[in-house]
Amino acid sequence: MSNRYAIILAAGKGTRMKSKLYKVLHQVCGKPMIRHVVDEAGRADFSKIYVIVGHGANDVKAAVGKDAECLLQKEQLGTGHAVLQAADQLADLDGTTVVLYGDTPLITHQTIEKLIHIQEEQHAAAAVLTATIEDPTGYGRVIRDASGNVAKIVEDKDANSDEKRVKEINTGIYCFNNRKLFTLLRQVTNNNAQGEYYLPDVIGLLVQGSEKVIAYETESFEETLGVNDRIQLAAAGKYMQERINQTMMKNGVTLVDPASTYLSAECTIGNDTVIYPGTIISGQSRIGSGCTVGPHSQIKNCVIGDETQIEQSVLEDSWIGNHVQIGPFAHIRPLSKIHDQAKVGNFVEVKNTEIGERSKASHLTYLGDATLGKDVNMGCGTITVNYDGKNKFATKIGDGAFIGCNANLVAPVTIGEGAFVAAGSTITQSVNNNALAIARSRQTNKENYALKLNYRANH
Amino acid sequence: MSNRYAIILAAGKGTRMKSKLYKVLHQVCGKPMIRHVVDEAGRADFSKIYVIVGHGANDVKAAVGKDAECLLQKEQLGTGHAVLQAADQLADLDGTTVVLYGDTPLITHQTIEKLIHIQEEQHAAAAVLTATIEDPTGYGRVIRDASGNVAKIVEDKDANSDEKRVKEINTGIYCFNNRKLFTLLRQVTNNNAQGEYYLPDVIGLLVQGSEKVIAYETESFEETLGVNDRIQLAAAGKYMQERINQTMMKNGVTLVDPASTYLSAECTIGNDTVIYPGTIISGQSRIGSGCTVGPHSQIKNCVIGDETQIEQSVLEDSWIGNHVQIGPFAHIRPLSKIHDQAKVGNFVEVKNTEIGERSKASHLTYLGDATLGKDVNMGCGTITVNYDGKNKFATKIGDGAFIGCNANLVAPVTIGEGAFVAAGSTITQSVNNNALAIARSRQTNKENYALKLNYRANH
Amino acid sequence: MSNRYAIILAAGKGTRMKSKLYKVLHQVCGKPMIRHVVDEAGRADFSKIYVIVGHGANDVKAAVGKDAECLLQKEQLGTGHAVLQAADQLADLDGTTVVLYGDTPLITHQTIEKLIHIQEEQHAAAAVLTATIEDPTGYGRVIRDASGNVAKIVEDKDANSDEKRVKEINTGIYCFNNRKLFTLLRQVTNNNAQGEYYLPDVIGLLVQGSEKVIAYETESFEETLGVNDRIQLAAAGKYMQERINQTMMKNGVTLVDPASTYLSAECTIGNDTVIYPGTIISGQSRIGSGCTVGPHSQIKNCVIGDETQIEQSVLEDSWIGNHVQIGPFAHIRPLSKIHDQAKVGNFVEVKNTEIGERSKASHLTYLGDATLGKDVNMGCGTITVNYDGKNKFATKIGDGAFIGCNANLVAPVTIGEGAFVAAGSTITQSVNNNALAIARSRQTNKENYALKLNYRANH
Repeated sequence: MSNRYAIILAAGKGTRMKSKLYKVLHQVCGKPMIRHVVDEAGRADFSKIYVIVGHGANDVKAAVGKDAECLLQKEQLGTGHAVLQAADQLADLDGTTVVLYGDTPLITHQTIEKLIHIQEEQHAAAAVLTATIEDPTGYGRVIRDASGNVAKIVEDKDANSDEKRVKEINTGIYCFNNRKLFTLLRQVTNNNAQGEYYLPDVIGLLVQGSEKVIAYETESFEETLGVNDRIQLAAAGKYMQERINQTMMKNGVTLVDPASTYLSAECTIGNDTVIYPGTIISGQSRIGSGCTVGPHSQIKNCVIGDETQIEQSVLEDSWIGNHVQIGPFAHIRPLSKIHDQAKVGNFVEVKNTEIGERSKASHLTYLGDATLGKDVNMGCGTITVNYDGKNKFATKIGDGAFIGCNANLVAPVTIGEGAFVAAGSTITQSVNNNALAIARSRQTNKENYALKLNYRANH
Repeated sequence: MSNRYAIILAAGKGTRMKSKLYKVLHQVCGKPMIRHVVDEAGRADFSKIYVIVGHGANDVKAAVGKDAECLLQKEQLGTGHAVLQAADQLADLDGTTVVLYGDTPLITHQTIEKLIHIQEEQHAAAAVLTATIEDPTGYGRVIRDASGNVAKIVEDKDANSDEKRVKEINTGIYCFNNRKLFTLLRQVTNNNAQGEYYLPDVIGLLVQGSEKVIAYETESFEETLGVNDRIQLAAAGKYMQERINQTMMKNGVTLVDPASTYLSAECTIGNDTVIYPGTIISGQSRIGSGCTVGPHSQIKNCVIGDETQIEQSVLEDSWIGNHVQIGPFAHIRPLSKIHDQAKVGNFVEVKNTEIGERSKASHLTYLGDATLGKDVNMGCGTITVNYDGKNKFATKIGDGAFIGCNANLVAPVTIGEGAFVAAGSTITQSVNNNALAIARSRQTNKENYALKLNYRANH
Repeated sequence: MSNRYAIILAAGKGTRMKSKLYKVLHQVCGKPMIRHVVDEAGRADFSKIYVIVGHGANDVKAAVGKDAECLLQKEQLGTGHAVLQAADQLADLDGTTVVLYGDTPLITHQTIEKLIHIQEEQHAAAAVLTATIEDPTGYGRVIRDASGNVAKIVEDKDANSDEKRVKEINTGIYCFNNRKLFTLLRQVTNNNAQGEYYLPDVIGLLVQGSEKVIAYETESFEETLGVNDRIQLAAAGKYMQERINQTMMKNGVTLVDPASTYLSAECTIGNDTVIYPGTIISGQSRIGSGCTVGPHSQIKNCVIGDETQIEQSVLEDSWIGNHVQIGPFAHIRPLSKIHDQAKVGNFVEVKNTEIGERSKASHLTYLGDATLGKDVNMGCGTITVNYDGKNKFATKIGDGAFIGCNANLVAPVTIGEGAFVAAGSTITQSVNNNALAIARSRQTNKENYALKLNYRANH
C-alpha cells in the first residue's frame, strides 16, 4: 500500500473576518476550524499530516499541537506556493497527497478517504473533489472529457457560455500522485493578475501532459464550504451542529429542539437523556443516561452520572454523580465533586468543593473550598467564609451535620458529624461531633416601637 | 347515522428510539405521542376508541387513562393482527372504523373527520388517506383506476417503473366499513418475508372483491408523519410547535421568536401578552392578557392574571395575580399564591407561600411555608427558617410588617401587623403588632486594627 | 433638483392583530413598526415626511415624535382618502411624493431612493414598486405594455386567466409626480364594494390620461411585506433580525447562532465580540471589541467597554468598563457604573451603584445606592441596607476595604479605606480608614447537645 500524506493550507490572513484572531482559529461549535480539519484528517489513514502556516503561525501551531507538523510559509504567494512548502518533506516520496484547507471545517474523513480510494483505484495522477450545485456562479467549473475524466478546470470569469452552464464545480480539494504533484508544482508560474502561484494550475499541467485526472463528485457539498467571513462562520456552525445533533439523536438522546441545542463534537451523552432548549454542552463533557439537562444550561468539561437533573444552571470542570439535582440557577465552578443523590438548589454556588451523598445545599448558599460528608443539610443562606482577603482556607463538615440558615462558617473550621449550627451564627471555632454551636444575640421585642420609627410614615 | 370507531395501534417496540421508554410514550411538545392521538381522536365523533397495546402495555394504559379502551396484543404479528385484537368488540357491529397510529402524533381530528365523511358519503368499503409528495421513495404508492378509485397499493420495493413515478403515497391511515374490515382481516395471511399480517392487504382483498376503495388526499402530509427515531421525534415536535404557536399568534399573542418559544397544546394565553424567546409554558398553564413573559422562563401548570411580568424565572404549580412582577432569576415553587401588585425579585425562592397584595420580596430571599399579608416588605437576604432538620414549620407575617435585611425568621413564628424586625436579627419568638424586634450585637470599631490583620498583606 | 415628500399611511385599525395596541405600534426587533418606517424614510432624501394617523392617533403621534408631521384622517375611507389628508400641505407643490405604509416595517431607504431615482430619471408621472413572486395569488398584478411601462394594475379577483399568470405584483408603494397625484386623487371615486377611495385608482387615471407610469421591480420582496396579524409580525421580526445580524457579522461580530440572537437596529458592537445564543441586546446599547456576551443575557441601553465578559445576566441603563466580569446570574439595574477589571459574580444585584476598578462582589450580594472605591472586596452575602421602609440611603466604601461575608451595611454609612468588617456583622455606624468593625456574638459550643434536639430524630 502506498504512503498517504495530507497538506492542510492554513496560512491565509482572513481579512474579511475583520478580526485580530487568525482566521483558522475562529471556532465552529466551540473548536477552532483548523482543529476540526486536523482531527478529521487524523481519522483518515495518513502517514503524516502537514499544516502550512503563515499569518499567526505561532498561534496556529499551538492549536495544532502534536497532531500534525507545521511548515512555515513566510510569504503568502498562492496555494501552489503554499503546497510547495512541503517539498523538502514530500517531493522525493512515493505515494498520494491530499490537499485540504484550514478554513473548510466541515470536511469529513469519509469523504477524504473516498477521494483517496478512487484516485488510487483508478491509478490517476490526480483526483478532484467536485460537487454539483444549483447555482455555480463564481465557482470554477469542472469540464469532463468523453470518458468522464477531467479535461480542464475553468474559472468562472474565464468560462465560455457552454462552460458557464456546467453545474459541477471544483471544491479545491485534491488528491495527487505525490511525485507528479511536486514535479509540476515547480513548473507553475505566477503569470496572472494576482501574481500568485495557483495550485489548480497543476491540474492543467497534468492534463497537458496526458496524465489521467479524475473527478470524484461528493453529495455533501456543504462539507467543502469555506469560511471567509462571520456569516459563513455561522453557517458552518449550523451545519456542524446539525451533524453532531443528528448523531446524538440517532444514539438515543432526546433533543427537544435541536435547532437551539449546542453540543460539542467531543461530548458524549447516554441514551434517554433529554436536553431542553438553550443548552450548551462543551468540551469533553460526558453525560450519563436518563438525565434531564436544561433548559438554558451550560456544561463545560464535566462528567455527569445517570438520572441526574440539571436545570437553568452553569457547570464547569466538575464531577457529578447519579440522581443528583442541580438548579435552577445554580453555579458549579471547577474542581467540584457532587456525589449521588445530592442536591444543589437555586442561587447556590459551589467551588472546589466535595458534597457527599444525599447532602443538600438547597438555596442561597456558597460552598467554597469545602468538604461535606453525607446527609449534610446546609440551611438557606449559609456561607463558607473561605477568604480573609489574602488566603483561601478549607471548611470540613461531617456526616449528618445541620447548618442553620444564614450561618457563616469562617474557615479554617471543622464541623463535626451530627453537629448542629444554629441559624444566624458566625462560627469561628470548630464544632465537635454532635455538639450544638450558637453565636447570636438574644431577641428583644420593643412593643409599639415600630410606630415611632420613620418607617412607613406614609402608612 | 352509522356508528364510528377508532383503533389506535400502539403496540410496537420502537427499537430505533434506543430507549427504555416505550415508543408512543415519548413526548412531543411535552405530551406523550399516544396522548396526542387519543386527544385528537377524542375530538372527532367516535362512539368508542380502542388502543392496541403490547410492549410497555401497562405504561401505555396509564397514559391513555379513561379516554380509550386498551386491548392487549400479546405478540406483535403485524398491523393486521393488531387490528384483529378489536374483533371481539367490533366485528359484529355496523359502522365505520378508522385505523390510526400511536406514533403519528400530528394527525388532527379535522383530517380524521374528512376521511370518515368521504368514505361514508361515497359508500366506499374503505377510504385510504393519501398524500402527494415530491420524493415518494420508500413509500407505498397508491395506484388509481380510471374512475379515480384505488386500484391497488404497491410497496416501493414491488413497484414497477411506472408505479415508482407515482407521487401519491399511502399514509397508512384508513377508514373502513367495519364489517368488511373484520371479515377480510381474517383472510389476510402472513406469507411474506417478515411473516407478518399486514393491514394494507385488506385493501387488496377489497379491490379483489370488487369493493369500492377510495383515496382521500390530504394537503397536510406532515400530519401523517410517523416517529421511529429521535430525529423524527424532534421533527414532529417542530411541526406541532409551529401549529400551536400559529394558533396562539392568531389569537393575539405576540411571540417575539416563534421558533424559540415552547408552548403546550393545553396552555391558554390572553391577547396582547408578549412572550420572549426561550420561554417554555407547559401543562395546563393559563396566562392572562397584557402580560410579559420571558425571556428564558419556565411556567408549568400555573394560573397567571393580567398585566403581570415574568422575566428569566421558573414557576411551577402556582397562582399569580394581576400586575405582579417576577424576576429576573426568581423561582416560584409549587403551591404558592402571589396576589396583585406583589413583587418577587431577583434570587428569590418562594415555596408553598402566600404573598399578599403589594408585598415585596425584592432580593436574595427565601419564603417557605409562609403567609404574608399586604404591604409587607421583606428586606434583602431575609429567610424563613422553616426546617429544623426534621419538620417544616409555618411563618406568618402581618400586613405592613417590615423585615430587615439578612433577618432569619425561625418558624413557627408570627410577625405582627406593622411590626419591624431589625436587619441582621435572628427572630425565634413571635413579634406583636407594631413592635420592633432586634437580636443583634453592638458594633465595636477597633481603630487601625485592620492594619494588623493578615488581610491584604500584599497591599 | 425637485422636492421630495413622503406620506406614510398609518391610520388603519389592524383588527386582525386582536390588540388594544394600535397596529403600527406593535414592535419588530424591539421598535414600533411605524418607527422603522419613519427612520428609514428619514435616511432617504426627503424634504418632509407626513404620517397619516387615525386609530390611536395620539399614541402614534407620540411614537413618531418630531421626525415627521402627523396629519389626522378622522374617518378611514380608503388609501386614496388617506393620502388626500396631505393635500393642504402638498397639492400645490412641485416635486415627487412617495407613499409608504406604517405596517411594512422592512422597507429600506435604498429601495425608496431607487424608486424615486427611476421615476425622476424617466420623467414618469408615477413609478410603482413591484416584485416578482412565485405564487402571486391574492396580489394585484402589474400588466406592462409593449414598451415595458405599466398598462394597468389589476386586482386578483378581477384578473382574467392570462393576467392571473403574471407573477409581477404591486407592492402598494408608489412614487408620484406630486401635482398629478393630488389632481387625480380628487377624481377617485368610492364606487366599489367597500365604498372606499383607493389609491391605486390614481394609476388607472394616469394611464387613462396617457401619462407615463413605470414599474420598478425590487429584488427584495420581503421589504414590502405588510403586517396584518401576529404571524406576519413574527415573520417581519425574523427578516429584520436576519438583516441586522448579517450586518453585525459583516462588521466582525461573531454570532454563535444568529437565529437565536436578538439585536436591536440601534445597538453597536465592536469586532471580535462573541455573542452566545439567547442574547437580547436592545435599545441604544454600545458594546466594545473582544467582549463575550451571553448566553441568555439581556442588555438594554448599556455602554460596555472592551474585553468584558457578560454571562447569563440582565443589565439595564448602565455603564460598564473594560475587562469587567459579570455573571453568570447577575442583575445590573439602572444607573450603575462598573469600572475596569471589576467583577460582579453570581446572584449579585447592583442598583444605582458605582464600583471602582478591580473591586469585586463575587456572590450573593446586593449593592444599592452605593459607591465603592478601588480594590474593594465585598464578601459573599453582603448587603447594603439602603431602605428603611420609607427612604433610600447611600453607602460609601473606601478603596481596599474588605467587607466580611453576610455583613449588613445599614445606610447611611461610610466604610473607610482599608477598613475591615468582620463576617456576620450588622454595621450601623461608620468605620474609619483601616479600622476593624465587628458586631457579632461569641460562639458557644454545647457538647452533645445536638443529640437532644428534635433534629433528624430519624437518624
